[in-house]
Amino acid sequence: MQADGGGGNCLEGVRILDLTQFEAGPSCTEVLAWLGAEVVKVENPHGGDPGRGSFGRPDGGDAWYFLLFNAGKKSITVNLKEPRGLALVKDMAREADVIMENFAPGAIERLGLGYDEIRAINPGIIYAQVKGFGEGSPFENNLAFDMIAQACGGVMSITGEADQPPVKPGATIGDTGTGMLMAISILGALYRRKGSGRGERLQLAMQDAMLHYIRVAFAAQAATGETAPRAGAKLLSGLNPPCGIFPCKPGGPNDYVYIYTSRANQAHWHRLLTLIGREDLIGNPDYDTGLARAEREEEIDAMIAEWTRRYDKHEAMRLIGEAGVPAGAVLDTGEIQHDPDFERRGIMQNMQHPANGPFKMPGWPVRHDGAPPPLTPSPALGEHNAEVLGNWLRLSQAEIDELRESGVT
Amino acid sequence: MQADGGGGNCLEGVRILDLTQFEAGPSCTEVLAWLGAEVVKVENPHGGDPGRGSFGRPDGGDAWYFLLFNAGKKSITVNLKEPRGLALVKDMAREADVIMENFAPGAIERLGLGYDEIRAINPGIIYAQVKGFGEGSPFENNLAFDMIAQACGGVMSITGEADQPPVKPGATIGDTGTGMLMAISILGALYRRKGSGRGERLQLAMQDAMLHYIRVAFAAQAATGETAPRAGAKLLSGLNPPCGIFPCKPGGPNDYVYIYTSRANQAHWHRLLTLIGREDLIGNPDYDTGLARAEREEEIDAMIAEWTRRYDKHEAMRLIGEAGVPAGAVLDTGEIQHDPDFERRGIMQNMQHPANGPFKMPGWPVRHDGAPPPLTPSPALGEHNAEVLGNWLRLSQAEIDELRESGVT
Repeated sequence: MQADGGGGNCLEGVRILDLTQFEAGPSCTEVLAWLGAEVVKVENPHGGDPGRGSFGRPDGGDAWYFLLFNAGKKSITVNLKEPRGLALVKDMAREADVIMENFAPGAIERLGLGYDEIRAINPGIIYAQVKGFGEGSPFENNLAFDMIAQACGGVMSITGEADQPPVKPGATIGDTGTGMLMAISILGALYRRKGSGRGERLQLAMQDAMLHYIRVAFAAQAATGETAPRAGAKLLSGLNPPCGIFPCKPGGPNDYVYIYTSRANQAHWHRLLTLIGREDLIGNPDYDTGLARAEREEEIDAMIAEWTRRYDKHEAMRLIGEAGVPAGAVLDTGEIQHDPDFERRGIMQNMQHPANGPFKMPGWPVRHDGAPPPLTPSPALGEHNAEVLGNWLRLSQAEIDELRESGVT
Repeated sequence: MQADGGGGNCLEGVRILDLTQFEAGPSCTEVLAWLGAEVVKVENPHGGDPGRGSFGRPDGGDAWYFLLFNAGKKSITVNLKEPRGLALVKDMAREADVIMENFAPGAIERLGLGYDEIRAINPGIIYAQVKGFGEGSPFENNLAFDMIAQACGGVMSITGEADQPPVKPGATIGDTGTGMLMAISILGALYRRKGSGRGERLQLAMQDAMLHYIRVAFAAQAATGETAPRAGAKLLSGLNPPCGIFPCKPGGPNDYVYIYTSRANQAHWHRLLTLIGREDLIGNPDYDTGLARAEREEEIDAMIAEWTRRYDKHEAMRLIGEAGVPAGAVLDTGEIQHDPDFERRGIMQNMQHPANGPFKMPGWPVRHDGAPPPLTPSPALGEHNAEVLGNWLRLSQAEIDELRESGVT
């Protein structure tokens, strides 16, 4: 299901010069492409974004990783080691509304493409930078990747079992989580710029972005005075049984159903008791408040697990959900990939990539006027050289050919 | 450090009517407030957003949880069970640029405040809704909270140790992660609306939003043909040793340093060998490629751990980082809370709340022209009744008093 329009033209006419690679930067500019901006990815002529080669695929095509984070963009090749290549990027910067980069610390400035240089030629530019650590941090010159941000930003310390080492969430909060916050600030800056023409410098550190996603842990810490703990599948704040994952048939690694009964809504607990045939406990003071249940958490968890083990996780989720208690099966990536529901609703879409085959992948999940924006393929390396150099810089075909032959593009 | 301006006025003049509660909705509208929108939170006169009472604090004030997710907003009380209360919300909807809600499925429509009703009185409205499950999903009527979304959206299945049950990331990806994606779509819609006046309906399901944050797991699945696994502190994609957490002095629950050596950059491995005094292995084919190291991962991990155990995590991070290898100490919430670096750089700011005392908390982490936007307090319940009803609806003080005395506000 793909909508005409479907939000895909919110940013029509906005030009993004995209100097990003891997995920934190590309996830950000990809969102802007989904919303209709013209995102031009500048890549080196020899292999392009290193993300094209990550998680290599047997046929040597662009990695699925690259397809996932570069949908809907255009690609031009520019050799930044050539003075004429740098001049070309500056010419494009003059025509852009936004520039974004996530090179290693100091690299963009060494290229002569730092904020001051670009602002001098385009005072209205929105200049966005993602780094591992913030300017002025003791680690501002350090390299970082997703897992480093998750370690240094508190995320890992609150993920895992209480009596075991920290665990890294499989979700790439350090990369995509950071990219989303930068996208928000870019969009805010674009809103002000429309009309005023006023540019802005935006900077975000991956470490700093992590704090935004673990604010509940800061609330828990303020409430208890203790460093926020790890709590396995349960809540950091504790005191809420039953709350957690319960085993289901046939007992595979992801055969669990999450059950949550809110302290704020006593009805959840009563509905759950009715469902599992323990109405006798409704109103029993030993079980009827969150605090009372916290004192017999193991006993309660065992009682619920005895019931959940009779069902597979889908059936358990259906029965508990229909009873009015929040519940969710632990779905794995295979189940999500093959569930026709996600495809029917346009949450998973098929990328029809001419060289890299069809690939079913998550698109932008927000429905705009009834449907998520349609997915368009990631670009081949340098696919849009002629188009972009012609449209943005009004270069002739002969000039474009000469740039390629000279090794500039 | 707080900047004048500092991005805090990107959305100047934008009016948001905020019917959200808990976190997925409030985290979204809070970002819009940080960027300068006027966000008016509509709360019931009897206690307001249930988030005010969550994680109760001993002095009975607003929960820290509430302070964290409602900075910079205004609060008005409206009794939605009163016809005059509903009429008041409709009057405000006429004056708003954006309405957002995250009530249980069907609730807003039952109140007569559904999209069709609001669009009829304000055709330019941007109408944003967050639910647990998507329209058309078999679970569209089910309740959901952060942990349910993380279970059903694949996040938990890829988090935890390989041979153990799934774990819930401490980061509230289901709530704040969802809120950020909706903020992006709202900002895109606002950009188009400025000038065109065109409104839009936006819908996002928490389950669907999760897929956006685990796309690397879909890449790994496409590469291997297998459901994405759990990998503890390591990478889903494997094959990259050394990569993971290594124990440090004095051996507490978070005394680890994350070390990552990229397959794409052999220099990381060589620098690390030099640092730990094992230059003799540089160039040894049994260790010199990612594939070779993958076959002796345990041996390599033990060799590195022997070195990291001599240092505390801060010292280890400093030494490894200075050697040019990506590394990060696993910081806990207490260390982040008390590290002056975050406060000096404006990433942690002090909320000077008149009733709920000073509270040091993470603000918006993106620097706009040199500094994150300044933090302003969350509102007291109904603090802005007179101001908002006066400014938005031009009600007189007598009319405002009468509404309060009648129990409408």
